[in-house]
Amino acid sequence: MMASEEKVTFNIDKTQDFSGWYNEIVEKAELADLRYNVKGFVVFRPWSVIAMKRMYGIWEQALERRGHQPAWFPALIPESNFTTEKEHVEGFAPEVFWVTEHGSGEKFEERLGMRPTSETAMYRMYALWVRSYKDLPLKVYQSCQVWRHETKATKPFIRSREFHWIEAHNVFATEKDAEQQVLEDMEITQECLFGQLGVPFMFFERPQWDKFAGAIKTFAADCLMPDGKVLQLPSTHFLGQNFAKAFNVKYTNENGCEQYGWQTCYGPAISRIFAGVIATHGDKKGLVFPFDIAPKQIVIIPINPDINPEVGKKAAELEKKLSADYRVATDYSDKRPGEKYYYWEMKGVPIRLEVGPKDLQKQSVVLVRRDTGEKKFVKEADLSHAIQELGNNITESLKEKALASFNQMTAEAGTMEDAKQALDQGKIVKTSFCSLDLTAAHCAEIVEKELGARVRGKRADKKEHPDGPCIACGEKAGVVVYIARQY
Amino acid sequence: MMASEEKVTFNIDKTQDFSGWYNEIVEKAELADLRYNVKGFVVFRPWSVIAMKRMYGIWEQALERRGHQPAWFPALIPESNFTTEKEHVEGFAPEVFWVTEHGSGEKFEERLGMRPTSETAMYRMYALWVRSYKDLPLKVYQSCQVWRHETKATKPFIRSREFHWIEAHNVFATEKDAEQQVLEDMEITQECLFGQLGVPFMFFERPQWDKFAGAIKTFAADCLMPDGKVLQLPSTHFLGQNFAKAFNVKYTNENGCEQYGWQTCYGPAISRIFAGVIATHGDKKGLVFPFDIAPKQIVIIPINPDINPEVGKKAAELEKKLSADYRVATDYSDKRPGEKYYYWEMKGVPIRLEVGPKDLQKQSVVLVRRDTGEKKFVKEADLSHAIQELGNNITESLKEKALASFNQMTAEAGTMEDAKQALDQGKIVKTSFCSLDLTAAHCAEIVEKELGARVRGKRADKKEHPDGPCIACGEKAGVVVYIARQY
Repeated sequence: MMASEEKVTFNIDKTQDFSGWYNEIVEKAELADLRYNVKGFVVFRPWSVIAMKRMYGIWEQALERRGHQPAWFPALIPESNFTTEKEHVEGFAPEVFWVTEHGSGEKFEERLGMRPTSETAMYRMYALWVRSYKDLPLKVYQSCQVWRHETKATKPFIRSREFHWIEAHNVFATEKDAEQQVLEDMEITQECLFGQLGVPFMFFERPQWDKFAGAIKTFAADCLMPDGKVLQLPSTHFLGQNFAKAFNVKYTNENGCEQYGWQTCYGPAISRIFAGVIATHGDKKGLVFPFDIAPKQIVIIPINPDINPEVGKKAAELEKKLSADYRVATDYSDKRPGEKYYYWEMKGVPIRLEVGPKDLQKQSVVLVRRDTGEKKFVKEADLSHAIQELGNNITESLKEKALASFNQMTAEAGTMEDAKQALDQGKIVKTSFCSLDLTAAHCAEIVEKELGARVRGKRADKKEHPDGPCIACGEKAGVVVYIARQY
Repeated sequence: MMASEEKVTFNIDKTQDFSGWYNEIVEKAELADLRYNVKGFVVFRPWSVIAMKRMYGIWEQALERRGHQPAWFPALIPESNFTTEKEHVEGFAPEVFWVTEHGSGEKFEERLGMRPTSETAMYRMYALWVRSYKDLPLKVYQSCQVWRHETKATKPFIRSREFHWIEAHNVFATEKDAEQQVLEDMEITQECLFGQLGVPFMFFERPQWDKFAGAIKTFAADCLMPDGKVLQLPSTHFLGQNFAKAFNVKYTNENGCEQYGWQTCYGPAISRIFAGVIATHGDKKGLVFPFDIAPKQIVIIPINPDINPEVGKKAAELEKKLSADYRVATDYSDKRPGEKYYYWEMKGVPIRLEVGPKDLQKQSVVLVRRDTGEKKFVKEADLSHAIQELGNNITESLKEKALASFNQMTAEAGTMEDAKQALDQGKIVKTSFCSLDLTAAHCAEIVEKELGARVRGKRADKKEHPDGPCIACGEKAGVVVYIARQY
């Protein structure tokens, strides 16, 4: 047991005070530094970046396995590209950072926008690349940063004026192929976001008044933060032929006729998903990382190596051996073991490996799981196998736990009063609603005004039928929607 | 043998017409698209990006193995940060792209520069992060793009206004530690640039008139392009305490005294190194990729699958099997086999796997090396092993060939006439020179004026002693330098 004077590194209950938990862990675990001197921009520090690099890898592999190819497009987009698609420019122009000059003030002839998203950079090239049906489907993605001059309050990872994402942009010969891609994007999201990172979510078709600027339909995954607000994670957009017509993306079909392409785009925002991961799995002691993305997967704690030099030697030997397959740290600092435990628990390292004089004799070590605190004695000979198994178990059990909790967070409501009560309890409200068309926008306004919440849309992954009138106006409902407060 | 009407995809001798070879292969192999509508910016297409992503991985691993950690710093730097280090701002300010406004024209109070390099973004944070000697060494890198409004003519990969690089920035407690880091950076360069990519180079200490703005000393690797011009690849800079003093990067030492840190930075420009790789290994038929970074490592050519459906089936089976370990393409197009061969040779795929009806009977396939054209019959059962071995052989033999050719490219010269003759033959000239100090800058001007070439510096990897007078002024020489024409 730990001595009582041991300093607890972190001790905030995220379910009671999520904002306090979040702000404190971002600083304490050195995830981001908010002191950079451009408003809305943060420095992402190694402890988050190592994990986010792994997350990039997870999505890139999922995309490449399905035939998407990586490219790098310029960060700067001429103003005239933006204005090519009318709805798009209306949505994004207010947020663009403009480069107007270089050097000692020489002006550019045309303002250059730092990409807020790359449709208008990419589709102009797609018009040159797509010639024949043989060039389709065209599935290209890029991993990059985008910049948006947000007017909402920024919060590290959740909303910044610079964020790190992947954007996949596709052209298909037919409407059906494009619709199929939207389903594939949802499948990728399921595989990566829940399957590998253990973040449960619901995929919604967004209402028409809340879609991506220039899209026909927008689909988006919402995960739930511990304070009951939803966070939008990857979204995928069915663009129809809107951009193809604006940018002249045409192909010649088998019969020699020219046709406009059908387009989709998909945008997993890695830095924002990171917020979803830490908020979902974190606990009172701090971060809890799924095994695969943990910046360090194992921390070795030699017990009193100053008294037992053999213990220090063994720790070094184990670190060397395990580093071939895992990301390993060893804590040789002069802190007491208990303090070291608290510190690395706060940092979210999935497995703690303790080695002391008794363990040396028994040729074994102690493994402790971050998520459950469970201890296990393992023979050195079985170590590699035991860690592999433990790593998988940790991720699987994080997934189960997160899903169980997520599944309790939906409440059905038929009245505004019931809805308000459920929202106040931090739940997502399922209810009947007029429709997702622009004609129902006034009902959404009522919801926003009276409940301080937004209509997130209808489930994209299953059909649901309304069993009552519209919660806002009392007229006949045409759709089941989910209402939530949001980031 | 190929029928004579077969269309040769590519046929330019890079040693006779390097510029023609380079421009043509960039377009033909779809490496970059120069039609993007911002001057000096190009679109990097999948065939180069897949290779460059592998190259990023090679350097990142080499850095991380040596204790460098990844971070992500903002793309925008306030003007006041730039002006903090006087020499640095003089060097870089003329090239900065400035963001001055957002949205519909709201001005920022201070201009924000798109990073041309990140010293002034990072070291301001380092001043906050470094407190005690226990925080040192601080070794942080980022993989990112930088933007420089170059006035020189741009050339894809070689010089663009946007390029993709890694920048590693370090702080040490002592001058000696910092000097040691410069040596480590050279070791990383050797391991990655020659060891893994097979690009031979020489590491020079640059003359004082040609160092990085703000550095005490600059060391840089030059590789040699087929037209005899050198291309500067990674450089590493010993910054001394220049930036530490400007940005107040201080630590408290073991005795409780405050000290300025000693700094270095290292900048491998991945997109530029890519130019070095393709220029070094490419041949008359097009690209030649080292096995590990090839966008596709194996191309399977089924011979007349329309006549022999079994051949098509076998090709699909082999693709599936090999894709577990390699990047594999199969060419099912209706081109004749010979045309396919030419096409994939142009694309630089290291191994061609042919499968025809006779091969089916013998349960074997034909493997053809891109670099030598050598053919080999391999039993299907031995395929995986044979490919692994062939892949290694290809990379090793590319290295040997490149090194043998590089080693012939240096010529010693004692007079300006001899030097000119050697330079005209596309060689690097080794000669005696006054010194690398600013006092010798006028000698460098003579060289530049009379020979159209630059003094690249003295070898950083070995000591050499002058055996004659300075080639430019005839006075006593203090150093052996290398002179070359450059990109």
